[in-house]
Amino acid sequence: MVAPAPTTDTGPTLATVETPYLVLDSDRMDRNIARLKAHLATLCVTLRPHLKTGKSVEVAGRVMETPEGPATVSTLKEAEQFADAGVRDLIYAVGIAPDKLPRVLALRARGVDVAVVLDTVEQGRAVAAASRAAGVAIPALIEIDCDGHRSGVLPGDGGALLAIAGALVEGGDLRGVMTHAGGSYAARGHDELRRLAEAERRSVVDAAATLRAAGFSCPVVSIGSTPTAHFATDLTGVTEVRAGVFVFFDLVMHGIGVCAIDDIALSVLGTVIGFQKEKGWILIDAGWMAMSRDRGTAKQPVDQGYGVVCKVDGTPFPDLILADANQEHGIITVRPGSNGTLPPLAIGDRVRVLPNHACSTAAQHPAYHVVHGDDPAVVATWSRFGGW
Amino acid sequence: MVAPAPTTDTGPTLATVETPYLVLDSDRMDRNIARLKAHLATLCVTLRPHLKTGKSVEVAGRVMETPEGPATVSTLKEAEQFADAGVRDLIYAVGIAPDKLPRVLALRARGVDVAVVLDTVEQGRAVAAASRAAGVAIPALIEIDCDGHRSGVLPGDGGALLAIAGALVEGGDLRGVMTHAGGSYAARGHDELRRLAEAERRSVVDAAATLRAAGFSCPVVSIGSTPTAHFATDLTGVTEVRAGVFVFFDLVMHGIGVCAIDDIALSVLGTVIGFQKEKGWILIDAGWMAMSRDRGTAKQPVDQGYGVVCKVDGTPFPDLILADANQEHGIITVRPGSNGTLPPLAIGDRVRVLPNHACSTAAQHPAYHVVHGDDPAVVATWSRFGGW
Repeated sequence: MVAPAPTTDTGPTLATVETPYLVLDSDRMDRNIARLKAHLATLCVTLRPHLKTGKSVEVAGRVMETPEGPATVSTLKEAEQFADAGVRDLIYAVGIAPDKLPRVLALRARGVDVAVVLDTVEQGRAVAAASRAAGVAIPALIEIDCDGHRSGVLPGDGGALLAIAGALVEGGDLRGVMTHAGGSYAARGHDELRRLAEAERRSVVDAAATLRAAGFSCPVVSIGSTPTAHFATDLTGVTEVRAGVFVFFDLVMHGIGVCAIDDIALSVLGTVIGFQKEKGWILIDAGWMAMSRDRGTAKQPVDQGYGVVCKVDGTPFPDLILADANQEHGIITVRPGSNGTLPPLAIGDRVRVLPNHACSTAAQHPAYHVVHGDDPAVVATWSRFGGW
Repeated sequence: MVAPAPTTDTGPTLATVETPYLVLDSDRMDRNIARLKAHLATLCVTLRPHLKTGKSVEVAGRVMETPEGPATVSTLKEAEQFADAGVRDLIYAVGIAPDKLPRVLALRARGVDVAVVLDTVEQGRAVAAASRAAGVAIPALIEIDCDGHRSGVLPGDGGALLAIAGALVEGGDLRGVMTHAGGSYAARGHDELRRLAEAERRSVVDAAATLRAAGFSCPVVSIGSTPTAHFATDLTGVTEVRAGVFVFFDLVMHGIGVCAIDDIALSVLGTVIGFQKEKGWILIDAGWMAMSRDRGTAKQPVDQGYGVVCKVDGTPFPDLILADANQEHGIITVRPGSNGTLPPLAIGDRVRVLPNHACSTAAQHPAYHVVHGDDPAVVATWSRFGGW
């Protein structure tokens, strides 16, 4: 990143940092965090935030309950980076590949309680064998497939669940069960979200009961997706909730009905670099490299293209979207079929684009430029990391 | 990146580096480079490779004609990085935002001949004014819109062309004209590619003639897209060709008919971490964070999902694709409607996935792990950079 141009009597602002760059409105972020924490407090469960969205020590510090965690990660690189920053209680929430266990053991040797996730007998045996070889019982959660979305033991397949648990405890530590209601990202409306939240809860509570009835310990019952976390009304039997994207929110979450447009804390600043006036296009220097290729709203009732175009202060232009993107070119148009009109932007003017998917857009950038609400002052730059 | 696990008597191999990671088959890359250079030599034009695909000093060194260039970049960060590595002849091929001109001037002050691109009178005036203020004539190429794809002056709009040239030369240096046949990415078949290549050529040759007839100098006539570069049969009047993705190729280029599957030099290694046997799914640890969200083959006759799944040696499994992706999970299935069968992969087995779009997949990774053909030895690690 290039240092913002100095101004005579102030620090960097949204008008001076060279585009394209990532903006984080920390007021909106703080509000989003407070909202979910307040909701989960009424349900008496712990928040174990997923740090994969932010990949930033500063963001992690704001969303975790304590500087030591608990938290969730999607890569061992994240586990190592956050361990360096003092986090001591982590779940690595992607099915464990056996050859990653030495890195898990290295983290545990540093005093970091990292638990792994698995859903096959083979992985249970591998964790047990690595635990015996190291003389350290690696904790593992068995993943349950609550909605057919991705990984996990099917609910009701008690045979598989008990076989995995039996293999794991031959050296490993059965920490509990976990699921992720990824299917909720395709949900519509509050009633469906409440139903999916209950199905998510039920899947792990039932699995925990099966394990306990067979004599296994199952202290942790972990659920988590941003949509279900916000719409759950009863989490009896659940001990913790993992959620990630709620910290920033995005257009996909808005399309599902989980947040308002003005809850979205993440955006990309771009500069006007051209026009195709006959077509009604404005070109900016934020293309897919700045926005990501994520088209998560394409399947929603309102397709936002590559993002919703706003004034620099974050106010959306009516029906103006980033309709298409090349690597370093974004094409702004009025939403097809709408009554929007193209604003009178000139070469060098700046706009702010709200992303479809905060996790993927943030991943395209090396840092957050932090602002407070509609104040253009960039009050901090928080670095973020990538890789595995 | 984590260092590969050492083995007893050899260096790192595709079996030992921890997944997911990016693989570059330098034999295929060298062959791709030689193929385009040989073709362009017969057409008597210079190759000015686009370095945005590789974003790597080592890849740049192999694709450029000399260590000093010429080359093309998509960001000023690339220009600065490659200038640090000794490149001295660059076009920054994205319409210039006026507030980026100080960085262009800083590069020129270091002895790097950076030219900018523009297509409005406003930009022409801004470049001229910055040139006058600095006492340095910044060279600029006027972009022509050869196929309605993105930026540029419409062919035939001589009035706009001459107005831009007139504004520019009040201080700036009119270096020439350029275009990019981005519409060729949606082409089908060799005849259409040849037709688009001729339309691309004609658009800039005509623009150069218009400028010259009005008394402007127009030494450079620059075209470039990977599909048209390979199918052009006559480049009379063109001085140089910019192309980028040909270095690696990808499934989009294969779908257009520009390369064979076994020309694709870039891939991602992943490890099997689970199954949903009833659905015919194999899960790996390479999701969209490793592949990117690019779904460039979705509009092609053969939709490759998030990529074509191969054995570790690079041989494709018949009709096996990465059908869906979460952030760190990839879902492998047999291509819907095909006769493929799911291979008997086990937890911990590795696969290699060919990407839809080399530029976007490479951008998700910090480094290339370089191999030669089907030899599993990782002979080098080349870092790559991102950002602006």
